[in-house]
Amino acid sequence: MEIENHARSEPMEESQAQISHLAVDIGGSLVKLVYFSQNSEDDSSKSNVQVSNGNKGAAVIEGKLQFAKFETAKIHDCIDFIKSKQLRLTGCQHNGASANEECVIKATGGGAHKFADLFKEKLGVCLGKEDEMDSLVAGANFLLKSVQDEAFTYMDGQKEFAQIDQDDLYPYLLVNIGSGVSMIKVDGPGKFERVSGTNVGGGTFWGLGRLLTKCNSFDELLELSHRGNNRAIDMLVGDIYGGTDYKKIGLTSTAIASSFGKAISDNKELDDYKPEDITRSLLRMISNNIGQISYLNALRFGLKRIFFAGFFLRGHAYTMDTIAVAVHFWSKGEAKAMFLRHEGFLGALGAFMSYEKHGFDNLMVHQLVQQSPICASHGGDKTHSPADSELNDNPSIDCSLCLS
Amino acid sequence: MEIENHARSEPMEESQAQISHLAVDIGGSLVKLVYFSQNSEDDSSKSNVQVSNGNKGAAVIEGKLQFAKFETAKIHDCIDFIKSKQLRLTGCQHNGASANEECVIKATGGGAHKFADLFKEKLGVCLGKEDEMDSLVAGANFLLKSVQDEAFTYMDGQKEFAQIDQDDLYPYLLVNIGSGVSMIKVDGPGKFERVSGTNVGGGTFWGLGRLLTKCNSFDELLELSHRGNNRAIDMLVGDIYGGTDYKKIGLTSTAIASSFGKAISDNKELDDYKPEDITRSLLRMISNNIGQISYLNALRFGLKRIFFAGFFLRGHAYTMDTIAVAVHFWSKGEAKAMFLRHEGFLGALGAFMSYEKHGFDNLMVHQLVQQSPICASHGGDKTHSPADSELNDNPSIDCSLCLS
Repeated sequence: MEIENHARSEPMEESQAQISHLAVDIGGSLVKLVYFSQNSEDDSSKSNVQVSNGNKGAAVIEGKLQFAKFETAKIHDCIDFIKSKQLRLTGCQHNGASANEECVIKATGGGAHKFADLFKEKLGVCLGKEDEMDSLVAGANFLLKSVQDEAFTYMDGQKEFAQIDQDDLYPYLLVNIGSGVSMIKVDGPGKFERVSGTNVGGGTFWGLGRLLTKCNSFDELLELSHRGNNRAIDMLVGDIYGGTDYKKIGLTSTAIASSFGKAISDNKELDDYKPEDITRSLLRMISNNIGQISYLNALRFGLKRIFFAGFFLRGHAYTMDTIAVAVHFWSKGEAKAMFLRHEGFLGALGAFMSYEKHGFDNLMVHQLVQQSPICASHGGDKTHSPADSELNDNPSIDCSLCLS
Repeated sequence: MEIENHARSEPMEESQAQISHLAVDIGGSLVKLVYFSQNSEDDSSKSNVQVSNGNKGAAVIEGKLQFAKFETAKIHDCIDFIKSKQLRLTGCQHNGASANEECVIKATGGGAHKFADLFKEKLGVCLGKEDEMDSLVAGANFLLKSVQDEAFTYMDGQKEFAQIDQDDLYPYLLVNIGSGVSMIKVDGPGKFERVSGTNVGGGTFWGLGRLLTKCNSFDELLELSHRGNNRAIDMLVGDIYGGTDYKKIGLTSTAIASSFGKAISDNKELDDYKPEDITRSLLRMISNNIGQISYLNALRFGLKRIFFAGFFLRGHAYTMDTIAVAVHFWSKGEAKAMFLRHEGFLGALGAFMSYEKHGFDNLMVHQLVQQSPICASHGGDKTHSPADSELNDNPSIDCSLCLS
């Protein structure tokens, strides 16, 4: 495919030029948005290009995929955001039907069903429903195939970007940790099976965490857990064995025998425990459990690579470390946990990709995409130990869009 | 082996005649005791017998294996109990050593290490430490081989005793749910491997339950959960999908998408939730999780039968039902969850059996044992739906003891 500079074929109004093609993933806890924003005209280094692929007259616009999220409970904020962007909505006024009937926003997640009427009422658009698992897999495949420095391993505070051989990507296990957890064996583009899952996921951390600490937000809980010590509340092997290991079965004295087990044996009330320690213990319990069940499913199907995604992770070092350690421990080093930079947006990205599938505007996201700005900052250095804030950026993705 | 009536070979003091041979399993939450008590002399139908097996002079005493438990935090109550029974302690004054040095109580569980000094100080006995996994397996094998109506399935409120073919017992997966959970692949007597486990177990239910509801006892938590409705606090598939199923992947609208997930999305505080609903949700989360991980491990080794034991179960209908449903769901009906009447005493029984192994007194527990009194009450009817209290009895076991 040859790419060359190209003058925009027709003038666009400001609102259309800036933002177009939006897709939403409405989960139990969060709404995730992906949308395309055109590069501004003063960004001379990224001018529009035209693809010479036999499709004459196709306009190719350079821009970025942008990401945003809202709490599902505050879905009206999300609707206001979409309204404020005055999106160029795909499919409008096609086929001679009235505009309102035909305007479509691609949507996935359970909320695509639940909130369809609300979107119709407030934005005058239809939600074009895409299957949740289809979208997750399409999003994961896109990220793994097309985006540089997307996947990485995390162990002992060390992040290492993984070079994925495109011919050796499949099969893999995709573990998407949202409110609940889905585990999907992916065998190829569009070829997958949801093989397992667990209802102990991000919603459990947030829900139980809120009840136990009165924290209102997920991020506040994560922040608290940074400073906590799970040993204050977990029953360790050493607590049962009088400080010694249980060597015969490979359990050290500091291994957790029973999460929250210490809370049974003394006279402390909830208020006597530090919220930091509670959140740390809860995070570790849930992360470890997900890592273990994921590994057991990977083992079942002989899958060496497990990609963890979903908004539970939030690029949070301790969460990833716990999951990675769990996979390492249970697999005796045989399997590796891997993570994705755009962890929370797989479903939304997959729904975005589906515009192409349905032929609207012949949308094409080229495979020459690059993350900005973080990948520039560490250049060829593949191993570094970034602060959480650095990891948790969901950077925009440079790409181009082909409009017929 | 021929068994005949036998006059007691030597007079015994009251304290020796009534109770002898005690073993303890000291876990993180509970101390479990097994001891042999001789039948009283007025029980003429169960007089003493002598075994004619070439071991001339062996005294065979008929009696019962009795069971008791204490909280580990109240271990002094347990020590007082043992003291009050004035046990005939095995091994005393053997080998010419002083009584105190040689008196041994067989003990397993982590507390056998932690509390050894306390037992020495308060009772003047040594704890003869037996490995925890060895003991669990020995106890399970004894129950499955020697005790009638020990194993049963539980589904939809129906208990069904299982007839275990002794030649087809192995291999099986033993899942012992104490404070934490051990999963052991058992291939034969003394042949086993601890293949997995989880730190989300009985201590987690008790600890988290206490923090969330202020209930002090495990049984109070279980009692509360009877009356609860987990839908008040769990996020169901229907909550995300606007009341509909997610049929494509086999999830009904009432399936739990995220345990405690509803607690994220509204303005309720902990006190606004009913303790009944909280305990129900917690019990279901933990039971389902154990069922799932157990099944995945059974699958890994091609084990069709999974026996669940440990004091977490407490013969509690809802707990067993949830575990059984989880195993049924994840295995698509291929694997079956089974339960044991003496669920909480496997380790203690195994430690008890080890007296024989070490040759003290040539103790023998004959394989002609019978549960009392419950099995008489339902005769040949193998299917019934007993009240929880009926299941949760840990009935004493008729047996005989061979003393050289």
